[in-house]
Amino acid sequence: MEVSSYIKAPPKTIVNCVAYCEGRRKAEVELSQVHEILQEFNQFVWIGLHEPSEEVLEQVQHEFGLHDLAVEDAHKAHQRPKVEMYGDSVFVVLRTARISKDHRIEFGETHFFVGTNYIVTIRHGSSISYADVRSRCESSPQMLNKGPGFALYAVMDFIVDQYFPVVNEMEIELESIEDKVFKEKPSRKTTEQIYQLKRELLEVKRAVFPLVDICNRLVRFDIKCISEETRPYFRDIYDHVIRINEMVENTRELLNTALEANFSLISISQNDVSKKFAGWAAIIAIPTLLTGFYGMNFKFIPEIEWPYGFHAVLLLAIGLCLLLYYLFKRSGWL
Amino acid sequence: MEVSSYIKAPPKTIVNCVAYCEGRRKAEVELSQVHEILQEFNQFVWIGLHEPSEEVLEQVQHEFGLHDLAVEDAHKAHQRPKVEMYGDSVFVVLRTARISKDHRIEFGETHFFVGTNYIVTIRHGSSISYADVRSRCESSPQMLNKGPGFALYAVMDFIVDQYFPVVNEMEIELESIEDKVFKEKPSRKTTEQIYQLKRELLEVKRAVFPLVDICNRLVRFDIKCISEETRPYFRDIYDHVIRINEMVENTRELLNTALEANFSLISISQNDVSKKFAGWAAIIAIPTLLTGFYGMNFKFIPEIEWPYGFHAVLLLAIGLCLLLYYLFKRSGWL
Amino acid sequence: MEVSSYIKAPPKTIVNCVAYCEGRRKAEVELSQVHEILQEFNQFVWIGLHEPSEEVLEQVQHEFGLHDLAVEDAHKAHQRPKVEMYGDSVFVVLRTARISKDHRIEFGETHFFVGTNYIVTIRHGSSISYADVRSRCESSPQMLNKGPGFALYAVMDFIVDQYFPVVNEMEIELESIEDKVFKEKPSRKTTEQIYQLKRELLEVKRAVFPLVDICNRLVRFDIKCISEETRPYFRDIYDHVIRINEMVENTRELLNTALEANFSLISISQNDVSKKFAGWAAIIAIPTLLTGFYGMNFKFIPEIEWPYGFHAVLLLAIGLCLLLYYLFKRSGWL
Amino acid sequence: MEVSSYIKAPPKTIVNCVAYCEGRRKAEVELSQVHEILQEFNQFVWIGLHEPSEEVLEQVQHEFGLHDLAVEDAHKAHQRPKVEMYGDSVFVVLRTARISKDHRIEFGETHFFVGTNYIVTIRHGSSISYADVRSRCESSPQMLNKGPGFALYAVMDFIVDQYFPVVNEMEIELESIEDKVFKEKPSRKTTEQIYQLKRELLEVKRAVFPLVDICNRLVRFDIKCISEETRPYFRDIYDHVIRINEMVENTRELLNTALEANFSLISISQNDVSKKFAGWAAIIAIPTLLTGFYGMNFKFIPEIEWPYGFHAVLLLAIGLCLLLYYLFKRSGWL
Amino acid sequence: MEVSSYIKAPPKTIVNCVAYCEGRRKAEVELSQVHEILQEFNQFVWIGLHEPSEEVLEQVQHEFGLHDLAVEDAHKAHQRPKVEMYGDSVFVVLRTARISKDHRIEFGETHFFVGTNYIVTIRHGSSISYADVRSRCESSPQMLNKGPGFALYAVMDFIVDQYFPVVNEMEIELESIEDKVFKEKPSRKTTEQIYQLKRELLEVKRAVFPLVDICNRLVRFDIKCISEETRPYFRDIYDHVIRINEMVENTRELLNTALEANFSLISISQNDVSKKFAGWAAIIAIPTLLTGFYGMNFKFIPEIEWPYGFHAVLLLAIGLCLLLYYLFKRSGWL
Repeated sequence: MEVSSYIKAPPKTIVNCVAYCEGRRKAEVELSQVHEILQEFNQFVWIGLHEPSEEVLEQVQHEFGLHDLAVEDAHKAHQRPKVEMYGDSVFVVLRTARISKDHRIEFGETHFFVGTNYIVTIRHGSSISYADVRSRCESSPQMLNKGPGFALYAVMDFIVDQYFPVVNEMEIELESIEDKVFKEKPSRKTTEQIYQLKRELLEVKRAVFPLVDICNRLVRFDIKCISEETRPYFRDIYDHVIRINEMVENTRELLNTALEANFSLISISQNDVSKKFAGWAAIIAIPTLLTGFYGMNFKFIPEIEWPYGFHAVLLLAIGLCLLLYYLFKRSGWL
Repeated sequence: MEVSSYIKAPPKTIVNCVAYCEGRRKAEVELSQVHEILQEFNQFVWIGLHEPSEEVLEQVQHEFGLHDLAVEDAHKAHQRPKVEMYGDSVFVVLRTARISKDHRIEFGETHFFVGTNYIVTIRHGSSISYADVRSRCESSPQMLNKGPGFALYAVMDFIVDQYFPVVNEMEIELESIEDKVFKEKPSRKTTEQIYQLKRELLEVKRAVFPLVDICNRLVRFDIKCISEETRPYFRDIYDHVIRINEMVENTRELLNTALEANFSLISISQNDVSKKFAGWAAIIAIPTLLTGFYGMNFKFIPEIEWPYGFHAVLLLAIGLCLLLYYLFKRSGWL
Repeated sequence: MEVSSYIKAPPKTIVNCVAYCEGRRKAEVELSQVHEILQEFNQFVWIGLHEPSEEVLEQVQHEFGLHDLAVEDAHKAHQRPKVEMYGDSVFVVLRTARISKDHRIEFGETHFFVGTNYIVTIRHGSSISYADVRSRCESSPQMLNKGPGFALYAVMDFIVDQYFPVVNEMEIELESIEDKVFKEKPSRKTTEQIYQLKRELLEVKRAVFPLVDICNRLVRFDIKCISEETRPYFRDIYDHVIRINEMVENTRELLNTALEANFSLISISQNDVSKKFAGWAAIIAIPTLLTGFYGMNFKFIPEIEWPYGFHAVLLLAIGLCLLLYYLFKRSGWL
Repeated sequence: MEVSSYIKAPPKTIVNCVAYCEGRRKAEVELSQVHEILQEFNQFVWIGLHEPSEEVLEQVQHEFGLHDLAVEDAHKAHQRPKVEMYGDSVFVVLRTARISKDHRIEFGETHFFVGTNYIVTIRHGSSISYADVRSRCESSPQMLNKGPGFALYAVMDFIVDQYFPVVNEMEIELESIEDKVFKEKPSRKTTEQIYQLKRELLEVKRAVFPLVDICNRLVRFDIKCISEETRPYFRDIYDHVIRINEMVENTRELLNTALEANFSLISISQNDVSKKFAGWAAIIAIPTLLTGFYGMNFKFIPEIEWPYGFHAVLLLAIGLCLLLYYLFKRSGWL
Repeated sequence: MEVSSYIKAPPKTIVNCVAYCEGRRKAEVELSQVHEILQEFNQFVWIGLHEPSEEVLEQVQHEFGLHDLAVEDAHKAHQRPKVEMYGDSVFVVLRTARISKDHRIEFGETHFFVGTNYIVTIRHGSSISYADVRSRCESSPQMLNKGPGFALYAVMDFIVDQYFPVVNEMEIELESIEDKVFKEKPSRKTTEQIYQLKRELLEVKRAVFPLVDICNRLVRFDIKCISEETRPYFRDIYDHVIRINEMVENTRELLNTALEANFSLISISQNDVSKKFAGWAAIIAIPTLLTGFYGMNFKFIPEIEWPYGFHAVLLLAIGLCLLLYYLFKRSGWL
């Protein structure tokens, strides 16, 4: 088999196309040669595509006899995470997520076609290559020998694990919001930050929540391409998904409470402003009132001719102000 | 067959009445001739009605032996989306939606009677003609050969796909609301806009949510008029419906949060007004107090006879105002 | 049969007691003669009671062999809508509703005992007589021939349809509230109106919600007194009930949003008051400050002896006020 | 049988210990003689305990062969309402409630051990004696002849019926809160009252909600000690429990709305205060401004020497105040 | 058997490793000798580990033939509470909680591997030693004779019971919050305290809620290592877990209401501040206005030359102030 010659001019969208025999990497193959491999016993093909053109997809469909609807879905992207069974083969759609360099969450999509002797992974949008997963699998052939179902597990596990840093990032964001809410002055920015985090949480939830059902079905249903001994591994992914969901739910509930707490604190803050204002208004009003009396034009005003009248009133005013200041301070109005 | 003669004077409400043989358009037929076609093997009739009169409906009922209750429903419109099985035939009610030219959502209703060899679609209210769907179906006879069940799928798929632009419109509306909430001053209009969007969301949800159950039943139940190989197609609609529902739910949750955020921001805004007011009040109160002192009628007031007293007080007042202004500015009260 | 003689002195609470044969009204009968009719084939008795005395109920119980618990319930009224099966007979409790003349919702209760050859309806509280339903049924004997199950359907359908105007009334009330919230000034009355509508909604929901389960059980369970062909009719009621429930839920969710929107608008209104107040306070404070300066008793005040000084200050004050007014108006504070 | 001699010295915690034969009271018995009765056909023992000591419980356990865990539970009290089946016997825990003299809700607990020929009721905490229930049962032996299951029903029915006055009391409390919210000024007390009612509602709900499941299981499961004909009676309790739950839920939802409405009204009230204050401030500011002008020390002030100048200004001030008062009154600011 | 020699140098992480025969403690054993014991009839081994090293875990895995995934989980900690069945053996993960000395909640984790003749408990993080549970078990050999399933119950029961003081602590915290909300002035600290308690509640809920499902599965599923007679004991734990969950839910709902009530009270407080401020402003404004009039420079001012004019105005001012004070006090503004 002149396998090496196959590699000459692979279309760019085909990242990898390798045949495995008894769990061991056998050779890279051309897409058009795949059907030959499929006929041999105990072999399977693992093809990795990245945003494939319609022609490549058609070729893949032709090689493995995939259902029209699934291939249409695989081409369009922007699907909801789901698992569909078409006879002996399984079509899985997952959403991938990762933190970009500017701390935003970037979503991608990966589709899987899995049969008894093949697995095709198709990446769309922002996502990390699965080359590492593949080489890790290749390093333990006894596992990979469990068939394409194990390869499916390996990539799914990798995708799900990518959500942990994403959720952690959001938990850190929540903590930063908490700090702002409870330690800083109420600001428009904090409210907007809460809203944005909520938005991200909803998006992550939409990506992760359907995985509960997907894993459940992969574990429970009798699917030919997933061997009996591979199923506990999907239960493991199920556990991770449940945990991610819980973390998201938790963060969301805390965020809602933070929004309400924020609101309470704004009101308390408003209260403080009012009190402060009222206090200072009173302090200023008293001497104003006092000077009003001595500004009246009556002929006879007590002490009006006393040389120290002005100073007395001034001192009285200052004294009253200090007294009020002390009283307000004590009662918490200032 | 003098089919062409049939077309002479069709009642206006009958948009189309065509017989198909092995998936290929055979001929337009009169409603009254339909029973003849029904007796031939491998043929089916696809009738399109638009707000039919009671007489036409009765004729249809008579031709296909439909159940009283279903026909009554079909006449009344204003039904809830649902699927009803009467023996071998299926009665489906869907709500249609589209964006009108003035950016409002217009709802319509479409009813389907589907049997093993016939499908009747009845449009009510604002809705797009299904002529395009029909001609697209006719262009792939191998699909249409799957029977009336496929025609049902084609129209349902078309109706469901019409919801995507509607939901997108609402997502855009949400973004416009977000902009107003976070970037503009709080206004009565934004609040009303939030309320109106919520209203629309609820209406769309009422139209779309029952579809989850409808698709589920069409996929799962053993319905004679929907062939085994047509079912995955309804699963595809199911996926779309779930996605629309998720988008609606998402928008709704974000809208609720926006309403609360809006509220927080109104309070912060109120806070700012109070602070600003308090700050300026203080700035003005200080010189007022000062002039009060020199307005007192004491005989002996210090500097009262000093030629620059007035100017000194004026400068002092201005100086105090500037100082206060600076202090308030620094502490964020102005 | 001297049926007419039976009518002589019927107790007031027995509104109607008629025997039907093959769906056709045969004769009015005395309660005590009912058992004779029950023995004849293809006949059934339809008895209509209105707030019956304990004696009448005992007589009914005796004639049809009803269960103690059901009869006790029927006497007490204030039951929850429910369906109970006792052997071959069914006991149904429904709540009825109607709009009174002063636009309030009045609730009543109707109980049904249905067996294979009898139906007893017992009305409590505010409710419309079922005489019309009965005569409508009598006008289509082929339907009534389906047995007492059809009579049950006819009355239930009538009762459920009575809820539509009630719910419509509430939707109109909601619209009036919307108008008040978004177009009028915030008032205590609007808030109270929202609360009262919520109260009514909850009460209607309590009356309607259990009907979903009741209809479900009447459709699904194999109940002897409801013939196979009568069941789709209950499915029709089920649809109506679901729709009423949705309308109630919808109104409730909108009402909640209206309450929150109302709250936002109160706050915006508060904001406006504060701004307006602050603006006017500033406008008045400026001339006050100005006059303060010229009210000081310094010997040397510039322009103090200028004949037009007063007028100049007056004009300056007016000018400043106008300027401030213009500035505040432009920035939206007034 | 010298039954009377048994009564000599019963331990205080044993309220009652009676043997029934064919539903009729036969004799009071000593706890230690119970096993003799159990061997006779068609007899059963009904024992009523009140906060029994550990010894008495051990004796009971020994007589009837009860499970360790159940007896441990029965001794500890503070259980959650539940039903447990141990072979042929049933262990039921219910919470009892009643309104104390000072209008508080007092909770108690009652445990039941029911076998085919015995029933033991154990009361803990505040609760009414079941002597009345017992004598009412004894007055209809044909019912009591249905076995210990009927005695269980009778006491459970009694306990559940005790919740109606409790829930009514809470509904009355809600009405009093409504009155305070909508008719009186916002006060701290109303808010606290709302909170306390919510607390009580939650506690009642915790006591009542598990009963739905308990009744369900007693009706559905095939329990030997509850005869077929006794089951409808538990369905009756089930109905009551559902109704109590609904009332609690209803009150709770209204209470939440009242809390929100209360909040809206506080804000409106705040609005009113602000408006009133602003209005009066304006009314007072105008004459103050006016007097400021005539307080300036210009040499030439118009009308300054006019004998009626002061009166004119005074009248003008009063006139302006009245005008403003009228304007504010009309626009709703005062 | 030279059991004693086994104890010589046990690795630190192995807290305990004891063989039991017919429920009685037989001997401490070395990990490497365990397989010998496993071959003997009616014996089982109970091993207690504390944060074991990877080597010890591998040894354990080797001795009992545990599944890779479970062992990996056991090593990593930070799992969600769960139960996994691998053939005849069960893997259980629980979270433990306790109140630290500074009144914080400390969480730990305990993992169990249970087979028909062995149980391994692995403690991680803050947790109390299970030595007491073990010795309590050893003191009732007839119970321990039920097998490792009973040991599992004993430790699980102990862990679950540890949650009661934790939940009680949180209920006490809620009461302290209630006191602060209803009896003290609104403060930022109370709001933060509410938020922190909510956070803790969510964390406890996450630890406890999965236990409902775990207990359910241990009771219902037919697991070989849990004998039929041990199952009611897990039902008992189930009851406790349900109660803890209810307490947490209750506290959470009350906390939410407290947050809202807090908010209402802040607003009422704000209202009081506004009223007080307005009242005092009016009281001060009146004499200011009065003195303004007599400060005007008209030639002819009534009573201006009256010797007691000043005093009269002063008295009038004081009188008006007192009058206003009385009026405001009466109407609740001060």
